[in-house]
Amino acid sequence: MTLPSSVKIVEVGPRDGLQNEPGELTVATRVKLIEALADAGLRHIEAGSFVSPKWVPKMAGSDQVFAALKARPEVTYSALTPNMQGLEAALAAGVKEVAVFGAASEAFSAKNINCTIAESLERFRPVASAALDAGVAVRGYISCVVGCPYQGAIAPQAVVEVAQQLLDMGCYEISLGDTVGVATPNRIGALLEAVQRKVANQQLAVHFHDTYGQALANIYRALEMGISTIDSSVAGLGGCPYAAGASGNVATEEVIYLLNGLGIAHGVDLAALVQAGAAISAKLGRDNGSKVGRAMG
Amino acid sequence: MTLPSSVKIVEVGPRDGLQNEPGELTVATRVKLIEALADAGLRHIEAGSFVSPKWVPKMAGSDQVFAALKARPEVTYSALTPNMQGLEAALAAGVKEVAVFGAASEAFSAKNINCTIAESLERFRPVASAALDAGVAVRGYISCVVGCPYQGAIAPQAVVEVAQQLLDMGCYEISLGDTVGVATPNRIGALLEAVQRKVANQQLAVHFHDTYGQALANIYRALEMGISTIDSSVAGLGGCPYAAGASGNVATEEVIYLLNGLGIAHGVDLAALVQAGAAISAKLGRDNGSKVGRAMG
Repeated sequence: MTLPSSVKIVEVGPRDGLQNEPGELTVATRVKLIEALADAGLRHIEAGSFVSPKWVPKMAGSDQVFAALKARPEVTYSALTPNMQGLEAALAAGVKEVAVFGAASEAFSAKNINCTIAESLERFRPVASAALDAGVAVRGYISCVVGCPYQGAIAPQAVVEVAQQLLDMGCYEISLGDTVGVATPNRIGALLEAVQRKVANQQLAVHFHDTYGQALANIYRALEMGISTIDSSVAGLGGCPYAAGASGNVATEEVIYLLNGLGIAHGVDLAALVQAGAAISAKLGRDNGSKVGRAMG
Repeated sequence: MTLPSSVKIVEVGPRDGLQNEPGELTVATRVKLIEALADAGLRHIEAGSFVSPKWVPKMAGSDQVFAALKARPEVTYSALTPNMQGLEAALAAGVKEVAVFGAASEAFSAKNINCTIAESLERFRPVASAALDAGVAVRGYISCVVGCPYQGAIAPQAVVEVAQQLLDMGCYEISLGDTVGVATPNRIGALLEAVQRKVANQQLAVHFHDTYGQALANIYRALEMGISTIDSSVAGLGGCPYAAGASGNVATEEVIYLLNGLGIAHGVDLAALVQAGAAISAKLGRDNGSKVGRAMG
């Protein structure tokens, strides 16, 4: 049980977080948040989504966000591109890393993107291929890796199969998402044990939602199992579409506090991060979803 | 790394929680909360404190609380008794279990109770002795077991020494409190390793505050290390006197959700517990401090 000596944080607040927050959202607010996160030392920031504004109105204008961002060679700004049209728009905007978003639950895939898992993977294949041809890295998300709001418990083997197909099409990293936040550390242990038989730790990330307050315990379990890439969202941005008033993504501040305590390197300045979280929370007129943010803010 | 098969929850919301909540608090509100917790299956409930109302005004009338509680042979209602006067009042009120409250930090002891750790233990000795003579069980709390707001990091050995003295004076259980919530799982691991060399797991409890969102990860680490008694507070009642707006005790709902996921027995009905937490939160006009409570409420 050796913990990793350093961890890569993938900050998803400006995309997965903001797209689920109520209220007004301008391109300027998004850019300001992203710049503050980069200033705080984050090196992997999901900055937008190239998807129809009919489906995700909050991410409209992602091309303007990317155009406004200061060039920082040390920072990777990524974007979600669910289809070829999205990828083309992302490439036109100069995006250097994109992500596709599969599910381990048939019921979730059907409700969310109106197709089977197999069909969704077929749709992603040309997207990934064209991205790689353009020299753009592709990340693969898998949602509902432990539980599904429509289908209940998900077998680890279902996740393994989707992960392998995403790797086959050229994804360099697979982010395992507990979309509804129902996991506990034993479920994460069993899931990772199954996935690690087929996929190297270096290609795996965990993406946990804190709906039931379990995310940090699950992240600790993942660290114990050698995982060294963690998705998180500043100020816990993002809600849960399946439970009104519920918490969203695990807060980056809590993850950094944990890593500091564990002596694991990450490169993020916690005080600057807390300021960024306080600023976006105030701007959105919401409570700060990070306990670290509230205690230190 | 075998997790315990069952866990004893010590519900501290009606004491450690409520005493730190702002606003009005009546005996009737306290009794209603305690009855709801017992109805939900909690079997160990810290129901009050026999201490000068000058110091802890919220706990005034604890004798009336105990008098009003329905007799339930299966439930232990305990009270804090920091001195002989408190113990006498508790015995007069028919209390069957009391607790004394030491610190592992000299600076905290000085600021909080205006004496050294050794002096505080000398003060507790006759209290514990008289309680045992009256057939009343005594629990020992140790605060600041990992960090102190005035002194910084606390060495595990300081905790071991206080624990041994509390056991020597007849405490049947030692509750290890991370009063300021600064612990991370490695610190809990090192602390428990040191304490377990001298004290059996059956005599240990963990009492974690969630100031920085680390409590559940720390509880998971404690479970991994064989600890099977956990203090927690419904709805996360209780704030942090050292950081305005910060979180207090770990929420019992989150602990029960974790134990359910891990398949560890505890005897608590989560839905009934969530109702109790929602009711007291509404009564106090505060946000529900439990994420499980917000998601399920």
